[in-house]
Amino acid sequence: MRKDKNYFIKLGQLKEKVERVECMKYTLNSIVYWDKITHMPSKGIHYRSKIMGVLGSEIYSSFSDPALRELVGYFESRSDNDVQTDSMLKRIKRNYVYVNQIPEKEYRDYIALIATAEQVWASAKAENNFESFAPYLEKIVESFKNFSEYWGYDEDPYDALIGYYEEGVTTKDIDGYIERIKPEIIRLLTEINKRKSLMPEEMQMESGGFAKEQQMELTKAILEEIGFDFQAGRVDEGDHPTVLAASPGDVRLITVFDEHDIIPGIFNALHIGGKGLYEQGIDEGLLGMLLAEVASFGMEEAVARLYENVIGRNHGFWEHFYEKLQTLLPQFQSVSMEAFYRNINRVEAKAIRLEADELTYMLHTIIRYEIERDLISNRISIENLKEVWNEKYQAYLGVAPQTDSEGILQDVHWAAGYFGYFPSYIFANILSAQIADTMESALGNLDELLRRGELYRINDWLVQNIYHQGAVETPVDLIRKISGESLHAEHYVNYLWNKYSKVYQF
Amino acid sequence: MRKDKNYFIKLGQLKEKVERVECMKYTLNSIVYWDKITHMPSKGIHYRSKIMGVLGSEIYSSFSDPALRELVGYFESRSDNDVQTDSMLKRIKRNYVYVNQIPEKEYRDYIALIATAEQVWASAKAENNFESFAPYLEKIVESFKNFSEYWGYDEDPYDALIGYYEEGVTTKDIDGYIERIKPEIIRLLTEINKRKSLMPEEMQMESGGFAKEQQMELTKAILEEIGFDFQAGRVDEGDHPTVLAASPGDVRLITVFDEHDIIPGIFNALHIGGKGLYEQGIDEGLLGMLLAEVASFGMEEAVARLYENVIGRNHGFWEHFYEKLQTLLPQFQSVSMEAFYRNINRVEAKAIRLEADELTYMLHTIIRYEIERDLISNRISIENLKEVWNEKYQAYLGVAPQTDSEGILQDVHWAAGYFGYFPSYIFANILSAQIADTMESALGNLDELLRRGELYRINDWLVQNIYHQGAVETPVDLIRKISGESLHAEHYVNYLWNKYSKVYQF
Repeated sequence: MRKDKNYFIKLGQLKEKVERVECMKYTLNSIVYWDKITHMPSKGIHYRSKIMGVLGSEIYSSFSDPALRELVGYFESRSDNDVQTDSMLKRIKRNYVYVNQIPEKEYRDYIALIATAEQVWASAKAENNFESFAPYLEKIVESFKNFSEYWGYDEDPYDALIGYYEEGVTTKDIDGYIERIKPEIIRLLTEINKRKSLMPEEMQMESGGFAKEQQMELTKAILEEIGFDFQAGRVDEGDHPTVLAASPGDVRLITVFDEHDIIPGIFNALHIGGKGLYEQGIDEGLLGMLLAEVASFGMEEAVARLYENVIGRNHGFWEHFYEKLQTLLPQFQSVSMEAFYRNINRVEAKAIRLEADELTYMLHTIIRYEIERDLISNRISIENLKEVWNEKYQAYLGVAPQTDSEGILQDVHWAAGYFGYFPSYIFANILSAQIADTMESALGNLDELLRRGELYRINDWLVQNIYHQGAVETPVDLIRKISGESLHAEHYVNYLWNKYSKVYQF
Repeated sequence: MRKDKNYFIKLGQLKEKVERVECMKYTLNSIVYWDKITHMPSKGIHYRSKIMGVLGSEIYSSFSDPALRELVGYFESRSDNDVQTDSMLKRIKRNYVYVNQIPEKEYRDYIALIATAEQVWASAKAENNFESFAPYLEKIVESFKNFSEYWGYDEDPYDALIGYYEEGVTTKDIDGYIERIKPEIIRLLTEINKRKSLMPEEMQMESGGFAKEQQMELTKAILEEIGFDFQAGRVDEGDHPTVLAASPGDVRLITVFDEHDIIPGIFNALHIGGKGLYEQGIDEGLLGMLLAEVASFGMEEAVARLYENVIGRNHGFWEHFYEKLQTLLPQFQSVSMEAFYRNINRVEAKAIRLEADELTYMLHTIIRYEIERDLISNRISIENLKEVWNEKYQAYLGVAPQTDSEGILQDVHWAAGYFGYFPSYIFANILSAQIADTMESALGNLDELLRRGELYRINDWLVQNIYHQGAVETPVDLIRKISGESLHAEHYVNYLWNKYSKVYQF
């Protein structure tokens, strides 16, 4: 076969259909949903759920449209498509498999369930009452058990849910990473706990708290510092830090402030800022083919971790930026840069994931991963979920949540249907260390670069090597291509030992 | 024929299709568009235009879906439908005729044109340069000339454009109202100009202007006073006062502040507040049938005028509310209520519609109406449009706009494709006076009611008599039903003479 006129006519028809459904997806996931969590009045929820159900259903039926299926079949049978077309076909297939293997009515009910469940979760969290949310969670878990059967898996039903976020990654893979990392984190924690006295006291500063306006100003300064383009994005306050892109030219960051503590706001800014840079760095020319997206949730999270941890807790970065911080927040005039640096690298087990330090964060993630895996495999049930949660926190972190809001209700993820997403966090941390080492080989010593404030060089390298290509390549292929080796946990283990042996002097 | 099982199955099918397209309409017109004018970063415009084009096209094709047409045909052939079903059929027909008589490609291009034109208009206004907007306006006018042919008309092509907003109202009708009103306004202006010395000087207050935060606080206080429900709506600042409802439970008001003058902000709040009350008062049970909408643009504008002028410039209203105003704006401590009242009823010709007083506002509207009518009928062209605009302002109001921004570029309407909308303003003012007189017959003296601050009684009456029924009845039918007479201009003429003879003592 050769690419005759017919080939290009059909390609045009395919692209027109894909562009239409892509517009619907951005509308639902980024505009309508963003509005719901930032600006919608509370009495709007009923009809908003209806709108989200209808748009979800529209996307659903678009992927199973027989005319689209026929065009996809035509191109899948050919071996001479260009790389972008092949990648577009894979994205269509993933959308089709993950949505359209689910019967339409069931999918529609699920979208409506999620829309309501998030509101219920918010009320339950405010009222500190897991029991009022439990029936919704039970329904969501039931949905995902069914989904795993529709989607299919080889060994563990949970594989199907991981695969939704990370193509080709299995429960076995994640279990393998954990096997390597868990004992190292425990060894590190033991070393650190022996040296607790080396860490200075909490920072003492003249402060009656940090006003939201002040925190937002700092957030914007950090975002500007790392290269976020405010003509192609914005930042608002919300209940959960997140990033919603309505196109690379319209990237919405949502951040969270703690009025009594400035630190979470700083690292939320770096975390969502990293994701925002990723979304803004994607080639706009990939729009219309389902390819102007991040390579995967895990890859986006890896970039977020790179900015939050590798860069944001680096000594050189603060040598450069601390003066700016002191200018914006005069409360820090009485705190030395060294005391600040050591404090942001303090290790201390806490009940809330969003308040966790870099090291124990991984344990929070592992707990959620294990609970999800075991819920889906029927090894545990909703009835005793709160107990399982609290026991794991006691066992791994040595802390017990005092309330539901601080415990099992702390994250929106399950209410929003993000089952299978937490393993991406584990994948992401490992990946971020491998990216950092690769970037260092290309750009030279990272500490030096940050000390000179050359954030733009980091952004440029990431745009060129990771962001620009959108979803054309998978993360597994991409990391192999740029680093020359498959993903493995050694970069991450070395990174942790290097950092904490310096901070805690062992 | 009787209503057998088949009737109700088909009715369910029809309602499902109508509900789907209704969701798309609310998504495009209220969520996606609202976001565009309030929160979208500037670089988002390109893909946003694409999204709006795709959604517009989707709505377009939904109304011409053969399965929908067949169902509509079935119900139109019957004479035993209930009132709601018949009204729904009329709404479907209006949507179908006004959208689907336009060839799909042309409609899609038009939606994309409008999306871009608004941005161009905003830049042109900022840069005070009509010429950069003129080519877009020319294209928009060409579109509407074509639309008037597609939609059809009996006498004047402009009838087709009026009919889009006001069912059954013609150019001849509007010309008739103007014939009655214009000489009266001129007589009134002559009387007023003779007595200019009776009006006190501009209010003198200690003020370095009015901060936006202060104006927003006052706006919210006014909205609460008249009964706006903030759990079912919100207010934001924008470039043009407008109201976008994403359902009766989610009503978005957009207001505009003048930092140097508090008066426009007060009357914008009352104007959009009236519209907001209307949208919130619609029966939610009408959702899903294209009936949870205002009866017409003119009817909504009439309610806005009722709140802005009949209520908002009433002596009794300020007897009740002025103390609250003084509390929120200490700048008014030195201004007496009488001086304030007389000032808000001051008549003075100005070049900008949004700064116009109640009386001369009608002349601004008449100018726009005449220009649109003559553009569509090829009696004038874009080339000399600026001259026509400026000459009419000189002739009717005795003022000449100093710049394009203050003249022909002042309104977003033409850039947003609101051709045929301005006659609704004329219709609306006449209607507002007839509604006020009808309401007074039912509730007793309006001045007294307002003096007692019983705004809730006004809102209740309007909910019951106008808002609740949504778009089930047309404005022409509705005003006849509640007032017992057809719409005519005498209530309005009497209202004007009563008010100004008191304010200017003649």
